[in-house]
Amino acid sequence: MNTKAIILFGHGARDTRWHEPFDRLAALWKAQHPKILVELAFLELMQPGLEEAILSLVIVGATEVVVVPVFFGQGGHLRNDFPVLMSACQEKFPWIKLSATPAVGEDAAVLQAIIDFGARAF
Amino acid sequence: MNTKAIILFGHGARDTRWHEPFDRLAALWKAQHPKILVELAFLELMQPGLEEAILSLVIVGATEVVVVPVFFGQGGHLRNDFPVLMSACQEKFPWIKLSATPAVGEDAAVLQAIIDFGARAF
Repeated sequence: MNTKAIILFGHGARDTRWHEPFDRLAALWKAQHPKILVELAFLELMQPGLEEAILSLVIVGATEVVVVPVFFGQGGHLRNDFPVLMSACQEKFPWIKLSATPAVGEDAAVLQAIIDFGARAF
Repeated sequence: MNTKAIILFGHGARDTRWHEPFDRLAALWKAQHPKILVELAFLELMQPGLEEAILSLVIVGATEVVVVPVFFGQGGHLRNDFPVLMSACQEKFPWIKLSATPAVGEDAAVLQAIIDFGARAF
């Protein structure tokens, strides 16, 4: 059986309140896509890291994991650090199908939602 | 006459390619809301800063400027650094009406667009 999972992967921050929209994203995912497991993970400053998040999904049977970078721009973190991290995770869990999408800031609908949000301020 | 403007305010990054979605946001704004001026501004690592962006809008006649933080979470940057920066800018340009929205990551439609983007990966 193929058990799918998504990891919403953010930068992380020192202030714990930075986490709030990520909690909302996970809750939205669970409500709308209950058959696909979801975990949050962070590059730095917050827990869990990517490997821990994958491990917790593997423990409950995930065989296919898609990582969605919840970043706007694709700079050094996503172009350099992230592929290295993904490769290390794939090596640790060679039997799972691990892949990543582009950053959410690459998506036209996400950008449009930001424009619409700004327009409502006038 | 009341001349309105929006500033899309991002964190900034060392890698210049991080800038790309912000350029797309500015282009979308210009196409969809041509009567409201738009500038980008960055907290650090990229130019212009917030004060420079406001100055460039003031020079062309802006009297009302809304700053939209293009951030997901509201951590130390938005809760501590940003209000100080906004106050300093308001003192520099006391005759303009300067305000800010919450971070775009607080908007339900932005979060929904992220969920929909993730769902398309399956």
